[in-house]
Amino acid sequence: MAKIKYLLFGVCFVGSIALNIFFVTNNLFAGYENKQLSWSQKAAAEAEAVAAVSCSGHGRAYLDGLLVDGKPVCECNTCYEGPHCSQFLPDCAANADSGDPLFLEPFWMQHAESSALLVAGWHRMSYVFADQTSMSLELQKHILKVHSIARNAITKGKYLVFGVGSTQLLSAAVFALSLNSSSPARVVAASPYYPVYKTQTDFFETVHFEFQGDALLMKNTSDYVRNVIEFVTSPNNPDGNLRKAVLQGLSVNAIYDHAYYWPHFSAIPAPADEDIMIFTISKLTGHAGSRFGWALVKDKDVYLNMQNYISLADISISRDTQLRALQLLKAVLKGDGREIFHFAYEKMRDRWEKISQTISLSKRFTIQDIPPQYCNFFEKVRGPSPAYIWLKCEREEDTNCKAVLLSANIIGRSGSLFNAEDRYVRLSLLKSDDDYNSLLYRLKELISKEGRADTL
Amino acid sequence: MAKIKYLLFGVCFVGSIALNIFFVTNNLFAGYENKQLSWSQKAAAEAEAVAAVSCSGHGRAYLDGLLVDGKPVCECNTCYEGPHCSQFLPDCAANADSGDPLFLEPFWMQHAESSALLVAGWHRMSYVFADQTSMSLELQKHILKVHSIARNAITKGKYLVFGVGSTQLLSAAVFALSLNSSSPARVVAASPYYPVYKTQTDFFETVHFEFQGDALLMKNTSDYVRNVIEFVTSPNNPDGNLRKAVLQGLSVNAIYDHAYYWPHFSAIPAPADEDIMIFTISKLTGHAGSRFGWALVKDKDVYLNMQNYISLADISISRDTQLRALQLLKAVLKGDGREIFHFAYEKMRDRWEKISQTISLSKRFTIQDIPPQYCNFFEKVRGPSPAYIWLKCEREEDTNCKAVLLSANIIGRSGSLFNAEDRYVRLSLLKSDDDYNSLLYRLKELISKEGRADTL
Repeated sequence: MAKIKYLLFGVCFVGSIALNIFFVTNNLFAGYENKQLSWSQKAAAEAEAVAAVSCSGHGRAYLDGLLVDGKPVCECNTCYEGPHCSQFLPDCAANADSGDPLFLEPFWMQHAESSALLVAGWHRMSYVFADQTSMSLELQKHILKVHSIARNAITKGKYLVFGVGSTQLLSAAVFALSLNSSSPARVVAASPYYPVYKTQTDFFETVHFEFQGDALLMKNTSDYVRNVIEFVTSPNNPDGNLRKAVLQGLSVNAIYDHAYYWPHFSAIPAPADEDIMIFTISKLTGHAGSRFGWALVKDKDVYLNMQNYISLADISISRDTQLRALQLLKAVLKGDGREIFHFAYEKMRDRWEKISQTISLSKRFTIQDIPPQYCNFFEKVRGPSPAYIWLKCEREEDTNCKAVLLSANIIGRSGSLFNAEDRYVRLSLLKSDDDYNSLLYRLKELISKEGRADTL
Repeated sequence: MAKIKYLLFGVCFVGSIALNIFFVTNNLFAGYENKQLSWSQKAAAEAEAVAAVSCSGHGRAYLDGLLVDGKPVCECNTCYEGPHCSQFLPDCAANADSGDPLFLEPFWMQHAESSALLVAGWHRMSYVFADQTSMSLELQKHILKVHSIARNAITKGKYLVFGVGSTQLLSAAVFALSLNSSSPARVVAASPYYPVYKTQTDFFETVHFEFQGDALLMKNTSDYVRNVIEFVTSPNNPDGNLRKAVLQGLSVNAIYDHAYYWPHFSAIPAPADEDIMIFTISKLTGHAGSRFGWALVKDKDVYLNMQNYISLADISISRDTQLRALQLLKAVLKGDGREIFHFAYEKMRDRWEKISQTISLSKRFTIQDIPPQYCNFFEKVRGPSPAYIWLKCEREEDTNCKAVLLSANIIGRSGSLFNAEDRYVRLSLLKSDDDYNSLLYRLKELISKEGRADTL
């Protein structure tokens, strides 16, 4: 009897000790990871609670989202609604209008830990860093490293300028190149071109520059002895083709908008080595909302003038944005730093292939041709994976292609915005999985009807 | 013997069970606070580790700071050096040049928990919020609430525009007010005025506006029948006095720069109710580096034009910056939301009193007079607490007051920058405790020598 009691006690005792060992080990381990958290705990827990709100994969709750009963609620993707974004709206239009790069959102969901960032209340309150500059040196280093991995730009011998997205840098470059111009510099771009070149240059027009439209027209007239500034978008928005400046000569300065010159969207035949090259985090990591871009500038005076522009427009670029960009690039550069390029390329290629196969069944619509090309990043010949479909309505009567698509519940962007015919429409491939799936579905539907109409 | 063994086992067993209970309770409790942390843990721990780097209260390590052996190191305040910023540099100049609002940094150190922010990698990647706008509604609500507590502005019936600091909004307002002007609008400000009005307006000059200097000169000539835009800084930078527009009339539009119209820096005689009022987080919470400002605009067309300016210049304001601003305002609004105003006012008043007492001992220098005034926030008459000392060198030969101060190891900003005589210098009271202490020390030193020189 005593032995049984001994045994019983023994078992309980050993069990209890084992449990203690478990707890001690567990707490030690937890201590390693959790112990130090004090003031940051609440912010971290709040962010995780918001991230945990279930929106059925068709929406997202945000820390700064609208509150219901004090809690952030789901913000649903287009075509979904309900408290958990679980209700599909069957009549909803496929919106392929904007270049919103949400196709990369899943990448960041998969890299939650490495991309998370905790900002302290006293972080970088000053106008300047300790060295009296206003551009983070760490961020500069990370940008250069990303270029060296993507092999898309020669950064050596170039100056870096940060801007509020690439948008601001386009204007800063025009100002910088025309500052000392006695007669107004004429700003041009080859059609079809990104509309902002015109709208921005018109709006901010000074006595030093003015927008003059199509570079191709100017080339034909050979009338460019005076100061000319040519915007060159390569790969081009809307059509995804690689480009070089149309105009050449001593009086011509080119601003290379390389927003899309990443393995995501294009073969990289060689690292770009232009005098002014503009990039944006929007099309690299997908963070359009962060409004962060940079320019690589060869000439010191142009660089200083661009810095001066930023300084007079804004004083400098938000430290919060710079810190976020740094954290995102740190996450990009983890391991061999190539993962995001593979992820983005495969996704964009898959989208292009499915959409182009669908459209190849049509007689009514055609899309741009992008030849396969050797890629410096993948070290092989690769096919297209552009950011946009540049779709043409081929039927004579379909002069308003946007309206044709709209009647099939597809929202695109009119060709005339790009200084092309309205027979063209730009369709974005950059958006969320939901938007892309919707676009593919609506296009298939439209083209299948075309087939049936033909057999009638 | 058996009983003793029982007892021994019993004690151990009870002890072990007690320990188990402790661990279970502890883990449950920890679970409540810590349990859910997974992907955010590392970022939070990193931020706390950086915050824990010891810089002797004379510097700070930052998440995006320079690294030594992979770890962020101290960035020391002016006049301190060494790995822990513990070495004072006795010959170092007191730098009172810039309006860097670091006097508020201790407030944020004290409110570490409520101001901490964890940003997820996928936070707000889109160009737009769910409602297709680009200004956070939550942030808008919080801005209006801060105004209602500070009682410094009538927000009802006004539109809000966000900008990259107030700096960008100054330019946006000039563009918006002159867009439809057939002859160039003439932009003026009463001397002494903030230099950016001139430098920015000159740099971005279009056919629609031009800078024309001193509003007082224009008033005297009565030559303002044509479109005029007057910048009114109230309280004024550099001298801290409350101001109204100098020019009146149908053809005059005023842009009220209310950067300093907070209980920190001035009595608030009544809530401001101007057509265009510009504010900045820089002078409210001290986050100059965040580059975030807002305008309250009465006229819908002016508001739409300012929005259009922002949209063409930058597309929109960084979501990271908007999120940070929101978190800071949330922290400001905790409790009754009045704490930051008391903290800032007391600190600025104390600085003003010590410096003005010191200068009152001098025959060589005088400073501006700011009359006590009834304050709508404190609901009583209160004395001055301005952001800057506007110092005058009274000796006839001291025409370059900046040089006089520099010879005493004090760095100020020349009067001529503010379109005043160089007999004036602006000295910043906004900077860190170290900078302020240094300024006070150097001024005392300079003025005590003056006394000795007089008795010689």
